[in-house]
Amino acid sequence: MHHDRRDFLRNAAAIAGGSLLARDAAAQAPRPGAAGRPPQGASRKKMTLSWRPFTAQLRDVFTVAVFSRSTTPIVLTEIAYDGLVGYGEASMPPYLGETQEGCIAFLSKVDLSKYRDPFELETILADVDAIAPGNPAAKAAVDIALHDLVGKLLGQPWYNIWGFPASRTPYTTFTIGIDTAEVVKRKTRQATGFKILKVKLGRENDHEMIEAIRSVTDVPLTADANQGWKDKQKVVDELHWLKERNVVVVEQPLAKDAPLDDVAWITERSPIPILADESCQRLADVRRHLGAVSGINIKLMKSTGMREAHKMVILARSLGMKVMLGCMTETSCGISAASHLSPMVDWADLDGALLISNDPFRGTTIVDGRVTLGPARGIGASLIV
Amino acid sequence: MHHDRRDFLRNAAAIAGGSLLARDAAAQAPRPGAAGRPPQGASRKKMTLSWRPFTAQLRDVFTVAVFSRSTTPIVLTEIAYDGLVGYGEASMPPYLGETQEGCIAFLSKVDLSKYRDPFELETILADVDAIAPGNPAAKAAVDIALHDLVGKLLGQPWYNIWGFPASRTPYTTFTIGIDTAEVVKRKTRQATGFKILKVKLGRENDHEMIEAIRSVTDVPLTADANQGWKDKQKVVDELHWLKERNVVVVEQPLAKDAPLDDVAWITERSPIPILADESCQRLADVRRHLGAVSGINIKLMKSTGMREAHKMVILARSLGMKVMLGCMTETSCGISAASHLSPMVDWADLDGALLISNDPFRGTTIVDGRVTLGPARGIGASLIV
Repeated sequence: MHHDRRDFLRNAAAIAGGSLLARDAAAQAPRPGAAGRPPQGASRKKMTLSWRPFTAQLRDVFTVAVFSRSTTPIVLTEIAYDGLVGYGEASMPPYLGETQEGCIAFLSKVDLSKYRDPFELETILADVDAIAPGNPAAKAAVDIALHDLVGKLLGQPWYNIWGFPASRTPYTTFTIGIDTAEVVKRKTRQATGFKILKVKLGRENDHEMIEAIRSVTDVPLTADANQGWKDKQKVVDELHWLKERNVVVVEQPLAKDAPLDDVAWITERSPIPILADESCQRLADVRRHLGAVSGINIKLMKSTGMREAHKMVILARSLGMKVMLGCMTETSCGISAASHLSPMVDWADLDGALLISNDPFRGTTIVDGRVTLGPARGIGASLIV
Repeated sequence: MHHDRRDFLRNAAAIAGGSLLARDAAAQAPRPGAAGRPPQGASRKKMTLSWRPFTAQLRDVFTVAVFSRSTTPIVLTEIAYDGLVGYGEASMPPYLGETQEGCIAFLSKVDLSKYRDPFELETILADVDAIAPGNPAAKAAVDIALHDLVGKLLGQPWYNIWGFPASRTPYTTFTIGIDTAEVVKRKTRQATGFKILKVKLGRENDHEMIEAIRSVTDVPLTADANQGWKDKQKVVDELHWLKERNVVVVEQPLAKDAPLDDVAWITERSPIPILADESCQRLADVRRHLGAVSGINIKLMKSTGMREAHKMVILARSLGMKVMLGCMTETSCGISAASHLSPMVDWADLDGALLISNDPFRGTTIVDGRVTLGPARGIGASLIV
């Protein structure tokens, strides 16, 4: 019965643009069983997936090497099961190619009613992955909601399920976008409390950016070139220049499809670690980066969610690679989900929810610059809007 | 108070040869706080570790390439916390170098009272690992008991916590030891119900062994050379001969310290997968085997327990390596612990508890040759003796 109602809602949501969520559904009368569906045990609990589009409003126009924007399209998901709800999110910055429409089309193909229970995460997520190639954010939206649900069923936050104490978290970087020296100085001044900042490079004004920040603060910096650099020798010279200014790590100096031999050439000559970001999306990408970079940047919206991200951490660690845990601009749903991995990484870059003004969730927070995990079960995010 | 009592028991156990277990302890009156210990919150729950030596009696004298024996020394562990008990085991076949005495000396150095709760498995097990090098079985005895405890606290069996359904398990091999043709035929006939058998090779009578088995059954075989072969070209010839007799995989053809280039030479020419066993103990060993073998045999008593074994599976899978899950002669405690990993592997070799006549645990069983997981929480083993 519950199953039928949720199937109705799922279809209705797909048609109407996905405006319904589980808590809305609870107010609706159950719908009689649809014709043609084989009868199933009424007592059997089932998972049902629902979703709604959401537009994250950025506090500031966000500029990196290749684009600017003021909103991020998101799809929020819920998986209801046995009186519990798991929350998930797909964040889809336009330049990555996924859209709310495409995400919802993908989610409408996910049938969770056929699984016996949510615990067979590996089976379910392998099936979801096989629905279509690509769609990493849409897949993450299922993965995160499922992990939230399973964590609630297990009665523990995921950091505990994964074997870490809440206390063992890193500082997070706070990102200073590309802008004029005056704006960069103002944003840097506003970022007091952060023990490490991230600077977006890869345009003409890299030195101006760094010097503007350095005129305000001495905290360590991470730098993200966002594929913005080209000449190998110039990159190495730049890395030495950055090292002298206490930049401690650099992400993605070259284009994501640059030959890994070129990346390795730079890494061998770099005085600071080089991380792959855009060129390393999923688990299968990690191995080919071995030897070419010092480490990888893992993001749930690239990795298809928590499960594969967790494996990527284990793989990278086992191969002696460093790990940064990053994010898109996301609500506190996605950021909370990622934060459970933070005890396992070298650098956290989890400021995504701080950058938006209409966060519908409360979850993992940043306290004195540190990723601060709460005691709540699952991913630890609660819907407040 | 509980802490003090258990510290007393731990010390008493170490002195008296470790004859006390947690359930015995429950009958004892609490002991007043020992002098010199700083007062701690009486309400704070603490983990306490206890142990006892146990001698597993083998149903048959067990013969492989380099030795024979009729018992296996074991140490059984318990971790008590908040009214729950987690069970663990160290199985120490003598040729591997660990002893009951050494295991108990190691366990007496483990102080679990200092941890806030059992969920910080990664922290605790890293600390345990750092107490001394080696001692993989002793470390596994802590790891397994801790996983059992945490699984009980989470209210689920570990296969569910790891994301797999109980139904997705492989057949297990049943081992036919090196013996005369008549004995081998008899043991093979007794092994009806097993869909795959494992044969120990590496002595003079390899062909006789295989032909004796093949005179009785057509089921696929796995072969374990246990470091017993030497000449590379002869090994390759032998592999072709074995392939023709439906041997589907071969473990450890050469000595564990043989050059990996020699192993790779064989693997490249082998018509069936070659697995590393003795030469691949822990997570750090996996990477250097990449390219030299088709896969690895993971055993809890080599890997220091479930946590590292789970990571080894993820690592091997991510690197495209095949995985066999093996065991020593173990009670149903160790076998149950390993069985939660079985949904993730290519071949299971979990007959260890079937080989002993005095199994003190009931847990994962073998039904119609298949590893059969129960619904019980944790590792799913209960003490019956």
